[in-house]
Amino acid sequence: MEEKIINNIKSLGIDMIDQAGSGHPGIVLGAAPILYTLFTKHLNINVNDKNWLNRDRFIMSAGHGSALLYSTLFMAGYLSLEDLKKFRQIDSITPGHPEYGVTPGVEMSTGPLGQGIASSVGFALAEKILGSRFQTSKKEPLFQYYTYVLCGDGDLMEGISYEAASLAGTLELNHLIVLYDSNQISLDGKTEFVFHENVRGRFEALGWNTELVSDGTSVKEIDQAIKKAKSSKKPTLIEIKTIIGKDSQKEGTNEVHGKPLEKTDKEELKLKWNFPSDPFYLVPNAQAEFQKELQEHMLKSYQEWAERYRDYVNLKGAESLEYLMKEQPMPNVLELPIQLETEKKTSTRAFNGEVMREISKVLPNFITGSADLFSSVKNYIRDGEDITRESFKGKNIWFGVREHAMGAILNGLALSHFLPSGSTFLAFSDYVKPAMRMSSLMNLPVTYLFSHDSISIGSDGPTHQPVEQLSTLRSMPNMKVYRPCDGKELIGCWNAILKERKPCSLILSKQEQDLLERTSSIEVERGAYIIRKEESLQGIIIATGDEVFTANRLANIMYQKYKLDLRVVSMPCMETFKEQPKEYQENLLPKGVRTVVIEAGSSFGWESFVYSSDYLFTIDHFGASGSKDQILKKFQYDSDSLEERLTKLFL
Amino acid sequence: MEEKIINNIKSLGIDMIDQAGSGHPGIVLGAAPILYTLFTKHLNINVNDKNWLNRDRFIMSAGHGSALLYSTLFMAGYLSLEDLKKFRQIDSITPGHPEYGVTPGVEMSTGPLGQGIASSVGFALAEKILGSRFQTSKKEPLFQYYTYVLCGDGDLMEGISYEAASLAGTLELNHLIVLYDSNQISLDGKTEFVFHENVRGRFEALGWNTELVSDGTSVKEIDQAIKKAKSSKKPTLIEIKTIIGKDSQKEGTNEVHGKPLEKTDKEELKLKWNFPSDPFYLVPNAQAEFQKELQEHMLKSYQEWAERYRDYVNLKGAESLEYLMKEQPMPNVLELPIQLETEKKTSTRAFNGEVMREISKVLPNFITGSADLFSSVKNYIRDGEDITRESFKGKNIWFGVREHAMGAILNGLALSHFLPSGSTFLAFSDYVKPAMRMSSLMNLPVTYLFSHDSISIGSDGPTHQPVEQLSTLRSMPNMKVYRPCDGKELIGCWNAILKERKPCSLILSKQEQDLLERTSSIEVERGAYIIRKEESLQGIIIATGDEVFTANRLANIMYQKYKLDLRVVSMPCMETFKEQPKEYQENLLPKGVRTVVIEAGSSFGWESFVYSSDYLFTIDHFGASGSKDQILKKFQYDSDSLEERLTKLFL
Repeated sequence: MEEKIINNIKSLGIDMIDQAGSGHPGIVLGAAPILYTLFTKHLNINVNDKNWLNRDRFIMSAGHGSALLYSTLFMAGYLSLEDLKKFRQIDSITPGHPEYGVTPGVEMSTGPLGQGIASSVGFALAEKILGSRFQTSKKEPLFQYYTYVLCGDGDLMEGISYEAASLAGTLELNHLIVLYDSNQISLDGKTEFVFHENVRGRFEALGWNTELVSDGTSVKEIDQAIKKAKSSKKPTLIEIKTIIGKDSQKEGTNEVHGKPLEKTDKEELKLKWNFPSDPFYLVPNAQAEFQKELQEHMLKSYQEWAERYRDYVNLKGAESLEYLMKEQPMPNVLELPIQLETEKKTSTRAFNGEVMREISKVLPNFITGSADLFSSVKNYIRDGEDITRESFKGKNIWFGVREHAMGAILNGLALSHFLPSGSTFLAFSDYVKPAMRMSSLMNLPVTYLFSHDSISIGSDGPTHQPVEQLSTLRSMPNMKVYRPCDGKELIGCWNAILKERKPCSLILSKQEQDLLERTSSIEVERGAYIIRKEESLQGIIIATGDEVFTANRLANIMYQKYKLDLRVVSMPCMETFKEQPKEYQENLLPKGVRTVVIEAGSSFGWESFVYSSDYLFTIDHFGASGSKDQILKKFQYDSDSLEERLTKLFL
Repeated sequence: MEEKIINNIKSLGIDMIDQAGSGHPGIVLGAAPILYTLFTKHLNINVNDKNWLNRDRFIMSAGHGSALLYSTLFMAGYLSLEDLKKFRQIDSITPGHPEYGVTPGVEMSTGPLGQGIASSVGFALAEKILGSRFQTSKKEPLFQYYTYVLCGDGDLMEGISYEAASLAGTLELNHLIVLYDSNQISLDGKTEFVFHENVRGRFEALGWNTELVSDGTSVKEIDQAIKKAKSSKKPTLIEIKTIIGKDSQKEGTNEVHGKPLEKTDKEELKLKWNFPSDPFYLVPNAQAEFQKELQEHMLKSYQEWAERYRDYVNLKGAESLEYLMKEQPMPNVLELPIQLETEKKTSTRAFNGEVMREISKVLPNFITGSADLFSSVKNYIRDGEDITRESFKGKNIWFGVREHAMGAILNGLALSHFLPSGSTFLAFSDYVKPAMRMSSLMNLPVTYLFSHDSISIGSDGPTHQPVEQLSTLRSMPNMKVYRPCDGKELIGCWNAILKERKPCSLILSKQEQDLLERTSSIEVERGAYIIRKEESLQGIIIATGDEVFTANRLANIMYQKYKLDLRVVSMPCMETFKEQPKEYQENLLPKGVRTVVIEAGSSFGWESFVYSSDYLFTIDHFGASGSKDQILKKFQYDSDSLEERLTKLFL
């Protein structure tokens, strides 16, 4: 029966791809025994309680194997045959690559290689943190689950997977088990020419346990390897030797990777399996048998959980678990006891540390980290303790110089009930971008903290000076970019971030400034508002972040010197402003009024606010190494030069 | 004397940082013996022939160690004391991080961690390729040089360095020697908490030779390790145990990493070294002694090269080396024997393969590669052979699924006389972006090939469908983005790319189309031009790439149905169009004429061309999985929907 069910998983996958006219048969035929073994012998998931808090997580990092995943989820009762038939069709729940929120049983969106395995480190880290926070009367962790990953050669070639694996080894995340579908074929051909390393040796050097399954069709071997992995004190990589497109005419070649099988090939396979040639044939009782097996181990785990849960609730009350169960109510950041710095100049990066500390006191799942730049971005939560392999109780994650993995791990944490954030320099947001796109696609409440936000950072030079990064982030769908100018706006930004629970970037500055008189925490909700009101409107300056100070100073000078009366608009969030009612937008920025934009970054995205590019006081070239003043002068971005430009435009 | 010179390198570095008021003293004090040993005992560079073709390359991957590099280059005669005094000042040749083209002796810009070490794989690969192409009468490689890298813990934590190292191991680039400044401290503190792996073990698993220097102050130990590395058949990682900020009061801590030393600390150090406290003190004869040592080994190598060179020129003539010596003349791609596909529909990605093949026949340094997507982007140069560890004679590099390292390696190749290109999907340009920024900063002739360029790719779904990527690439300074619509424009784009020798992206489509009647190879030079001329101008549609077909079809429909006469402008390169004389720009897109933009990507960058956002037929949201037609319909981007929008705007 075992073999029949596995063949049925394969045949369904092949039929789905055939019906869709596209897809990846190679992994279906090669890795079906792996998923069969995992689901029927180990994976504790419950189709009757899909959001079971203590379920095991399974991440299909090789996202192109969606047909295999869906046919397995069909066997497990998560999908109907109708769903399989709509594979890759618009608005179906079986899209070309797995999509979070679309398909029951899919824990995250995957497809771009490396993202799944890297985020799985976030899932496994979450389990450790939850495990250390919630304990039963016997001091047992309430949460005890495994994170399983299926990945291929491609995932392991990607740098992000190395970064994440190195951190997983450092933190000894032993409930992380990676099933490596080792077929030595990638899209372009044999990996021999491009991927000649000793993969298990590498993972051992990273502090991982490794296992080898030399016959990837042997359920017994796979089962035993997973058993060993579960009892290891380290994360485990199980290398499972498989043959891509097994039993197809093109088995073992890249030609079977990404195209539907030929008709005769498909027919021969079905003959071999002793299946009728009709599409979507179901082996009698296969689904029932699969689910029976799955339930056997799952129900045991489910009952153990129920006992631990009862014990825990008796001990501590259910309230402390509330934030894991549902959307928790968000605090009003404006009402938190945060002391604005009125006595001396401060930077938004420094003040942000204070704000985050207060938020962390009232939001238990608020957690942060840095890619080795806590000292510079200053987002370390004081009194929050560290997360280390000895203790997972803290609120500060040390990601090392691993920006990309940081993003993916934040995604895994957000998918595990946390409100995570992580930091680096704005110039290095480029390194994180692919993971940020995944946050945006999945609509996860991840906050990216980027400091050192313009050429004004000075002598570190153009490699460290962001120029195009604000545009890049703003052009990403479903990503809000906040750039507050002072402490008041920063509080407003955090309030909006918590309310919205969406992916966002918070841009912080290194430059120290006073508070501006007319800035407001409340008005941030509208994305943009007036911070210098004119008496008779002769023009407008829009600015963000540090440049709001420049704009305000310039407007005052223009008034004093020339009686030119300019409105100054601070725009801490362009996206939010664009969501406002048209009336608000037009009152703030009336049509026909000459408008200047001052932002020390790319013009992209600002053009719709101005009459011509002469009105864009933006920067579309790389920076330079020198002091802040030298740089601004060199690029005619100092106060005098900007005043001259304004004078030319308006007088 | 040795120790005195090393201390002098340190003291100059410390004085530079002190004078600048910023910089990184930790690596100066920790790694000075490494650079001293490398330069005086091994590195074959010639101050009197700085561009010597066969010079060893040294890459300071830990770019924050610029003060150490500059003080060493001062000893070697590349920089003056005045240059050191202007460290980190505007327009000096000693900027905050090393910048290519600014400082003699600096082989590439570094600073963003991981980029230097990854590009060094490109340098080392170039040496192998040149070595296999140019041989003396004794069948010896004309070129025989080493690529040395200094890197730190941070470099090795970055995923890009793993990707590149894995490929270097696969290709057995044995002339690559990485000096790993192993001080177990990164910016935020001890790496113990974040970087707990066995680094040498990892590199051995990647197919590298490794050496250990347990005392990083011992010139003798370092020297011997480099000697062993030079004779290895594999690339070598030398782990050199150092102490960050050695002998400072803060030695061994992250506090000495990135801030100038305290006054007393500096004074005590100078006392210890028995140096006067005046800044920029020079040990008598230190410079002369350093250079004498350097010249001893270098002159031997220089003479050997001269002999091989004479022999080679006798054999083959000097012409074949010409392209390595200077800017070679570029072919006119319009005149190459490229057969346009007139009989049947084709895609720009498919036709691009033909064009690249013809170019490769006339340009010997034209070389390409793919991050495992040769099969999809179709940029494999037929008859060009592969580059493998057995033979480096080919023109096709198999990068594996390593987009980020591909970019960095292309940079190393471009810095070694090649005209390289590399390919992946446009959606995954995000993975390459940080390396692309380095191409742009250094102004290197690297061509990035990106296919699968919009939501029209269909059922692979939103993870694989680019949306914001065109904007992201266009907003990058000094990066030209070409998006041709058909074969004629594609030829024009390649012609411009070769003429300009600048960083660029070439966007290719998967969709098959006919040639358009009015498109032109020549007109691409202007960035944008008319492909449908109106009789009486009632409006304009601007489009790029595949959307030019849509625009043309719509304009014809509008004319047939409503006698609305629209001009259609194809804009294969926005940046080039913006460089044109104002007159050309205004004639093509006269002010006051209602203009629509059709591009299946983000609106960012297009707003300046239209009157209001209603005229932007762009896409600012993620795609979906489905057939092309289903997707276009879902997002009202099908022909009927666009016609309706046009009708509403114009009628």
